[in-house]
Amino acid sequence: MRDQLLAAEKVKAIDWREDALYLLDQRVLPREEAWLACHDVQAVAAAISAMVVRGAQAIGVSAAYGVLLAARARMAAGGDWQSALDADFALLDAARPTAVNLSWALNRMRERLQRLKSDDDPLRILAAEAAAIHLSDRDANLTMAQLGAELIRKQQGNLQAVLTHGNAGALATGGFGTALGVIRAAHLEGMIEQVYVDETRPWLQGSRLTAWELASEGIPVSVIADSAAAHLMRTKGITWVVVGADRITANGDVAAKIGTYQLAVAAMHHGVRFMVVAPSSSIDMDTTSGDGIVLEERDGLELLDVGGQPLAARVGAFNPVFDVTPADLIDAIVTEKGVVERPDTARLAQLMSRKHLH
Amino acid sequence: MRDQLLAAEKVKAIDWREDALYLLDQRVLPREEAWLACHDVQAVAAAISAMVVRGAQAIGVSAAYGVLLAARARMAAGGDWQSALDADFALLDAARPTAVNLSWALNRMRERLQRLKSDDDPLRILAAEAAAIHLSDRDANLTMAQLGAELIRKQQGNLQAVLTHGNAGALATGGFGTALGVIRAAHLEGMIEQVYVDETRPWLQGSRLTAWELASEGIPVSVIADSAAAHLMRTKGITWVVVGADRITANGDVAAKIGTYQLAVAAMHHGVRFMVVAPSSSIDMDTTSGDGIVLEERDGLELLDVGGQPLAARVGAFNPVFDVTPADLIDAIVTEKGVVERPDTARLAQLMSRKHLH
Repeated sequence: MRDQLLAAEKVKAIDWREDALYLLDQRVLPREEAWLACHDVQAVAAAISAMVVRGAQAIGVSAAYGVLLAARARMAAGGDWQSALDADFALLDAARPTAVNLSWALNRMRERLQRLKSDDDPLRILAAEAAAIHLSDRDANLTMAQLGAELIRKQQGNLQAVLTHGNAGALATGGFGTALGVIRAAHLEGMIEQVYVDETRPWLQGSRLTAWELASEGIPVSVIADSAAAHLMRTKGITWVVVGADRITANGDVAAKIGTYQLAVAAMHHGVRFMVVAPSSSIDMDTTSGDGIVLEERDGLELLDVGGQPLAARVGAFNPVFDVTPADLIDAIVTEKGVVERPDTARLAQLMSRKHLH
Repeated sequence: MRDQLLAAEKVKAIDWREDALYLLDQRVLPREEAWLACHDVQAVAAAISAMVVRGAQAIGVSAAYGVLLAARARMAAGGDWQSALDADFALLDAARPTAVNLSWALNRMRERLQRLKSDDDPLRILAAEAAAIHLSDRDANLTMAQLGAELIRKQQGNLQAVLTHGNAGALATGGFGTALGVIRAAHLEGMIEQVYVDETRPWLQGSRLTAWELASEGIPVSVIADSAAAHLMRTKGITWVVVGADRITANGDVAAKIGTYQLAVAAMHHGVRFMVVAPSSSIDMDTTSGDGIVLEERDGLELLDVGGQPLAARVGAFNPVFDVTPADLIDAIVTEKGVVERPDTARLAQLMSRKHLH
């Protein structure tokens, strides 16, 4: 399975080369495949804010490389470069508020800095750390893909129709994707009849990114309006909703793309199983519950301007881009450390105390 | 209240003049206010299919005028014009499948034809009948507006935040609107703090039409993504969801704009009350339950092309434009004949046996 997944790897969103971080511009996909080169930390932070790169894990990986670019510039400027770097950490940390992977990756880079020895080459060490974060995310994706697919097989054997929301794919991560990694693995194992994907307004992560990723691999995918999901559950025999997450709190509440909560409510009403797939770097044990999460709201014009056209009436808009799904609506949280069914504080604490499986 | 509502009347979508039926082209609102003249029945049927005019009641009224245009042409052609008219009735009836008001209006025109006396002027009689359908729809809107607003006052006294979906406004009817009529009346009575409206993909009836109607009357309106409704119910203290309907079956099941069902499921989960507002012409006592309704599916490109731009991946799309909300998710159906709370077959039969209140 691991080898099959590796062989099927086609899409990547983040590429580090000698001089710069290259990001596939997700604002213009799938019409254009344009790569944006970020030569400094300011460019990385701006790309995260403007959603050139999006998806919790992809943001974390990008931020790690952002620290590397920042360190290079600060060292070149001379003086107390490590203290000067604090401003760069703060800049990156503020680029987007909801996903915890961003601050998780920054903390990992900061801790590595603090462990530098006098004869270390800081840039070499930081480059290795950023690459390790990138690689370990990809590796976590592979493990989660297998665990999630096993869960699907365990609950239902036959060909299944599954529903996903947003983009929790290769574009959102350092590798194969979280929710889409599971769907890819389930497809490789012959369990998938049809993948439905919510178009995911206002940014169309579903119809632009997820549909593009799946179609390019020959996985049968059909786009639906976000509002059609309950109708689909009622009429099309959906067995699983599989989604990603931007932050999971200690009690198992999940902050994810706006609309995830509404899907979870509909899934509960229809007896459809609900799976959240996210690496342990998305689990924030310092936040007790979803009430403690800052949910990003973006400009209402992202909603009112449709496809770049001012189609809507010029009125106010409320544009939260994440919501919180309470743990009690979730059947399983799949991480690279293992699966937590019916998540709660005790079960998540137990999971987080485990060593990595891989 | 009736006088206040009449004074506030600003938007109309259908205008009959001497020679033709004029329809406000709802495909380009609110950017353009363009009127399309239909000089024959073919033009009316095409306008209904292409959604120049949409909304169950507005379609019914338009079809009645379509019959008038057809009769004029058939009489001018000579011969057995009444038999020839059958093809025109069939053309109009097939223009869109889900709303029952279309066939209701056609049946009313057909029955009037069958009662023609030898010395009647057919065109004068048919013109009067179409105008009567138009006027009675407007009158029904006024009555429903008052009944729905009373219901809101009865259940909650203070300033309220309500949520609507699609466009069940003046543009969708012969008058003030069904759901929006209720919201207008509740606003006039000082009960509305904020109206939230789903943008209503793919056709954007909410962000284009409902937002435009409400804003033009100074009613506070805010657009949300369809997928944000449950998050809104959880965080913004929504008291009522108020929506229109395209067909209500004998048991109280409601076919309405895609997404209505998902809202009803979310409303039930949050203890938010759910009101359906529709004239008795939307009630189809010949269909036992929602299972018997043909739900229109439209071209997937309506979903994949966003704002006229081919933004989505070129994959398949499933684009049902209506869904069915089961009666047991509905708190009240408001008609011009009265209010049915907790609808079921017996209560709807009792309602339909009543005389009109007005």
